[in-house]
Parts: sequence; C-alpha cells; structure tokens
Amino acid sequence: MQRLNNITSRKLAYTEHRIHALLSARWSPVAFSDEMVEAEKIRTLLEAARWAASSYNEQPWHFIIATKDNPVEFENLLSCLAEGNQEWAKNAPVLMLSIAKLYFERNGAENRHAFHDVGAASAQMTIQATAEGLFIHQMAGFDVDKARKIYDIPDGYAPVAAMALGYLGDSTNLSEKLQQREYAERDRKSLENFVFSGKWNQVSPIL
Amino acid sequence: MQRLNNITSRKLAYTEHRIHALLSARWSPVAFSDEMVEAEKIRTLLEAARWAASSYNEQPWHFIIATKDNPVEFENLLSCLAEGNQEWAKNAPVLMLSIAKLYFERNGAENRHAFHDVGAASAQMTIQATAEGLFIHQMAGFDVDKARKIYDIPDGYAPVAAMALGYLGDSTNLSEKLQQREYAERDRKSLENFVFSGKWNQVSPIL
Repeated sequence: MQRLNNITSRKLAYTEHRIHALLSARWSPVAFSDEMVEAEKIRTLLEAARWAASSYNEQPWHFIIATKDNPVEFENLLSCLAEGNQEWAKNAPVLMLSIAKLYFERNGAENRHAFHDVGAASAQMTIQATAEGLFIHQMAGFDVDKARKIYDIPDGYAPVAAMALGYLGDSTNLSEKLQQREYAERDRKSLENFVFSGKWNQVSPIL
Repeated sequence: MQRLNNITSRKLAYTEHRIHALLSARWSPVAFSDEMVEAEKIRTLLEAARWAASSYNEQPWHFIIATKDNPVEFENLLSCLAEGNQEWAKNAPVLMLSIAKLYFERNGAENRHAFHDVGAASAQMTIQATAEGLFIHQMAGFDVDKARKIYDIPDGYAPVAAMALGYLGDSTNLSEKLQQREYAERDRKSLENFVFSGKWNQVSPIL
C-alpha cells in the first residue's frame, strides 16, 4: 500500500506534474472488501455529485443505488452487468447505475451535454469517495436495455454507467487475471497527444 | 470572500452533507482577473484531466488552449463563444475548448461514453483549478461548427465545451446583470429528486 497525505492507494499515478492527492490516488480497483459502506458516507458521495457543474444548471444526473443489505435489489443490479464485471463487482457492497436525462426540463430541447454532465457528477462522486477512503469502479460493460426494463427507466432518459463502490479488499481470492489487473501499472497518453494550440494536432507551447 | 481550509471562494455550496472543500468551493464565476495563469499551473490542470477514468481507458479528451499572451489565438477562440459569454469571458486570461474523440482507437466502434469521459476529465481539471486558487467556467454556448472550422477538427471528433480559466476578478466593471449572476446563491435539486432504489422515481432509503 502507498500513502499520500491521508490517502491510501494501491497505485498512485506517476504524474508528470504534481496533482492533488485526491486525484492521483483515485483509481478503479477490482478487489473490493465486503465491508458495508456507512450510509452517511454514501450520502456524502451523492452530495458531491449534486454540486457538479452542468449546462444551464440542468443537473441531468440520476443514480440508482443497491446495497447488499437488500440482497434482491443488489442481485437485480448485478444481473445488469457484463459477466466479466460481475465476477469481481459481486464482492463490492454497493452497486450504482448513473442515468442521464436527455432533454432540458425548461424547454424540451435535446441536452447535448447530458452524458458530459453525468460524467462530471460521477467524477466528483469518485473524488469524494477517495476522500472517504473509498473507491469507485465505473463500468461501461452492462446491459442498457435490461437496466431500462428492470428499473422502468422512461423514454428521454438513458442508463449511462454502472459503478461498484466500496473499500479496497483482499485480491488473493480473485482469478490470476484479475490479480494482474489489480496491480498493473496505471497508464495514460502523454499531454502532447491531446493538448493543442492554434490548430488541431499542433502541440501547445504551454507544455 | 469566504475561506474554507486554504480555499477562497465567493460562494461556498450550502451542502446537506459535508463534502470536501475542493468540491464545495468550486463554482463558475463571470468575474475573472486579467492576471495571467502560470504555465506550470496550466500544465498541472491538464495533468489532472489526464488521470481521469475512461471507458476502456480510451482517454477520448482533447483540449485546445489559447492564452492572452498570443492575442490572435485568444481572439480566435473568443470568437467561437456566444455573445453573452464573450462579454465576460474576454476578461479571462486563458480560454480552452474540450473535444471528444467519438470512436474507439482500438476497433473504430462508437464510444458511447466519449462526452461522459470528457466531462469527467474536465471535472478533474476544475477541481485541480480550485486547489490552485483558480476557477474554470465551462460553457455550452459556443459555435460548434465555427470551432471545427477554425481549428480544422477532423470528422470523428466533436467540440464539446468552451472554458474560461483564471483567478477571481473584480466584478464592479461588469454589467449589473452579470454582477447579480456573480453573487446569486448556488442552487441544486435535492437528493430526493435524483437518487432512487428498487425502481425509477422511488426515493432511496439510504437518504
């Protein structure tokens, strides 16, 4: 385990520039402890999402939560995940689903930033999780249609991402493949690949 | 001015549950100082974006940056903004544009989470800005086609959001309407409106 300020992480980011510990310690584990997350901490995470920025302050984000305290609801959400994700996410004590409202409340026009703003809210939730000693692993791999059906999600809303939430757990019970994934070094493109000035593909002189 | 830990803000969020100061102090000002942002701080903001989570670690985010040190480039980016945004964003020392790659590098399939993940990266950038004493105001109001043309952004990529970045400035030179906006109380839906369990619109018992 590595420690940075008061944050414990299995893999801190090897950053080119020093960023805040809440950001460098965030990462998506596959080894979750079965220890239940305190309800007040879950509320705090949702509160962090609540204060994200959004286009016209529309706040298009919604979250469905299932905890292991309610095994039927937990199993329902788990059943929406891709099999490869179920394998490890079943150990987490809390599962969530983020949902985007695709049209503006005020005029019914399409909200081009619905997914964008759900992404921002979920990022804020993840950062608050880090501050609480918790981890969130978001998943694109889930059955969108099944989730819509199970939860009766109306037209005009789209299931966006599934999430597992919990404390870090023992990885030794995981398959060898998942253990490798848990300890693989974190990897990102360098800034030169995506920061431009003047025109497309022209590396910014600020770097 | 309000201070929370080492963070100065004009309007801390009135949260129902106590969230990290980096999140509660974040907000989107219209009064920016013309003081230039240090290049190392800008790099740190981009580094924070770099370490966001993304679907299949695709990292679909790109950023175009224009600083007032280069007046032609600054004017070009400013000209993409809606007039109502130009009015205040022209005072900021740095403008940015976020861009999403819409298809996966690995297989060319559509990336359903391209905007979502750009939103997450931009949120991380904004939180790092707060840690640096800086503020970011993201804007949906800009001319997407003009931005694509000016920067020669290729098919398969979409301009997502414009951003103004800088230190807080004096609001007294702004129009009365903008001054009101600068000091208006921050407002969010309550958690009961968007946190469900079991089925859609069923308020979660965790609240």
